[in-house]
Amino acid sequence: MLAFDFLNKDTPTGQTMVLDKGLGLNAVADLIATAGASIDFVKFGWGTAATMDRALIQAKTAKYRAAGIIPYPGGTLLEIANRAGQYTAFLAEAEALGFTGIEVSDGSTEIDDATRAALIQQARAAGFYVITEVGKKNPALDHQLSAEQRLAAIQADLAAGAHYVILEAREAGKNIGIYDASGAIIEDALAAVATIGPAHLIFEAPLKAQQVALILKFGPQVNLGNIAVDEATAVETLRRGLRGDTVGRV
Amino acid sequence: MLAFDFLNKDTPTGQTMVLDKGLGLNAVADLIATAGASIDFVKFGWGTAATMDRALIQAKTAKYRAAGIIPYPGGTLLEIANRAGQYTAFLAEAEALGFTGIEVSDGSTEIDDATRAALIQQARAAGFYVITEVGKKNPALDHQLSAEQRLAAIQADLAAGAHYVILEAREAGKNIGIYDASGAIIEDALAAVATIGPAHLIFEAPLKAQQVALILKFGPQVNLGNIAVDEATAVETLRRGLRGDTVGRV
Amino acid sequence: MLAFDFLNKDTPTGQTMVLDKGLGLNAVADLIATAGASIDFVKFGWGTAATMDRALIQAKTAKYRAAGIIPYPGGTLLEIANRAGQYTAFLAEAEALGFTGIEVSDGSTEIDDATRAALIQQARAAGFYVITEVGKKNPALDHQLSAEQRLAAIQADLAAGAHYVILEAREAGKNIGIYDASGAIIEDALAAVATIGPAHLIFEAPLKAQQVALILKFGPQVNLGNIAVDEATAVETLRRGLRGDTVGRV
Repeated sequence: MLAFDFLNKDTPTGQTMVLDKGLGLNAVADLIATAGASIDFVKFGWGTAATMDRALIQAKTAKYRAAGIIPYPGGTLLEIANRAGQYTAFLAEAEALGFTGIEVSDGSTEIDDATRAALIQQARAAGFYVITEVGKKNPALDHQLSAEQRLAAIQADLAAGAHYVILEAREAGKNIGIYDASGAIIEDALAAVATIGPAHLIFEAPLKAQQVALILKFGPQVNLGNIAVDEATAVETLRRGLRGDTVGRV
Repeated sequence: MLAFDFLNKDTPTGQTMVLDKGLGLNAVADLIATAGASIDFVKFGWGTAATMDRALIQAKTAKYRAAGIIPYPGGTLLEIANRAGQYTAFLAEAEALGFTGIEVSDGSTEIDDATRAALIQQARAAGFYVITEVGKKNPALDHQLSAEQRLAAIQADLAAGAHYVILEAREAGKNIGIYDASGAIIEDALAAVATIGPAHLIFEAPLKAQQVALILKFGPQVNLGNIAVDEATAVETLRRGLRGDTVGRV
Repeated sequence: MLAFDFLNKDTPTGQTMVLDKGLGLNAVADLIATAGASIDFVKFGWGTAATMDRALIQAKTAKYRAAGIIPYPGGTLLEIANRAGQYTAFLAEAEALGFTGIEVSDGSTEIDDATRAALIQQARAAGFYVITEVGKKNPALDHQLSAEQRLAAIQADLAAGAHYVILEAREAGKNIGIYDASGAIIEDALAAVATIGPAHLIFEAPLKAQQVALILKFGPQVNLGNIAVDEATAVETLRRGLRGDTVGRV
């Protein structure tokens, strides 16, 4: 039973994706024990998984899976594998390492539309839960994407079989996608992508002000990603109206 | 015995309150083993306690108490309970969970003066160590508080039985209370509240520059709060003149 | 074997110094298990070691040494010992605590050139690996150092027997040494010190943009310091081209 159970509303909340930048097993245990029930996905950021021993990665994915969480390697690693012509080996290794999700992105490399759809379909056929990411990691390149292009990319990914589409914001949450250089939401950019509805979108929202703004706009059901490990519990309190910013407002 | 014991001055230092945003048991053990001797209070920030299992909260409070630390739930949770007419149940649950302190605040809701005094007195009567907090979490509302009102609120809380009064600064330490939008101290605002003397005040000071400024102004005995978990040891070094900013100055 | 081994290039990488601000044993175990293979030095920041029990420090240094890492106390603690006329006792205690490195600095106190050389030589004679640090912790004082003076100090330290010289940037990485108030590299300042070549320099580079800029300029072999504990793996991915910022560029 939850502490202070009588103060909790039974609010259904959206998906939460946490960014794991290289946690050890003690920290993973802490994360699961404290916030595991509210976490749906854990991304092993970019290529961090490739700097660690296989046994360690397997131990981590096993803990996440046992807690009902889908662990997946960062899209950058998939892009490196794709560029090297090693996508099939990448999927096999991901499965052997215990990952149950795959992220398809083109944030760091160029991937044409047909290839992107094929990557999504191959991952689905291999049994993975598939999340895609729309946006570029380089702000100058990202700014070249029009709202229409971003929306079209989201629709194409969902049509190709993606379960969710992430809107890129990187770890810092500034000057990318729907955020300006200060990290504030660009309302026009958000409105354009939101025409598709928030149900299948995951908004990367590493900054608290972004989390608050999106929860107040779309409700506790909004899906949030790139949540820092030590903010996972804080985000859940925002969703449930247990922090000043959302008390009485959700 | 402390490492490098011959370099330590035996300085009496002020109260330190650390902000626990949802630590797991491994991190709590680390915090206590490294910095427990210099920590007096641990606040389970806002409503974070209410997102976790009772058994986990009980295990955490037990560890803190065993280290001589007073654990207490965030004032926001008390405000939610008060608004729901559940204050007596809140105190009973807090005791059952092993909390030995209570924070009375009105940072997120409106509470009239008589009710506030009654909340303080009821918590004291129930055997809790009582800390109150003065200030609003919404900067626009907080800026409406004059220095005189802030001072009067501090005096009223102490008169009602509070052991310490915290000056609100939130986790970010900017644009609230005695801090401007950059986090720098507003000297007039500090001077006004400091007329009461620093002995019963706890300054929330999450930013290092704030910690340094307050220690240099009031000495190592100044009481500091909302210290981030991974800054607890750093704050102690500032108090003892073991970091560049205060070497030879305390 | 590393996860996704077929995606790794066998790049020789530079020295990495991580800043330990007071980790407990669970966190030390996590750090070593995840990133230990890429860490060469761990600095126990400034005087943090002197706030902890000797047994805890000994347990920490033993873990680091067993992982092939050189642990050393912060230069500020050496400066405090030197000022107190306790340098010999300091070295003896450092050895008893299991430190295998020593950092000689004058960031917080004044030390003349002859004394500095003697401190380096005494530490070497006592069997320590010796790293020195050039720069002042107070920006106003640091700005008084010309590029020529900084370069001369580096050369003098190496001549006196230092294995590496660190360029000071503090924990925040701003307004010190080769960085301006925003943390960006001052190209002229970097060019001046870099005439000596990067092989024996360690650039304190706590901010990601600094790490990226230095890796792109000098290659993965550049030596980086004051890396935050939770960024150790991220820095290694930058060196190996496994993060968007350096994919295909190293």
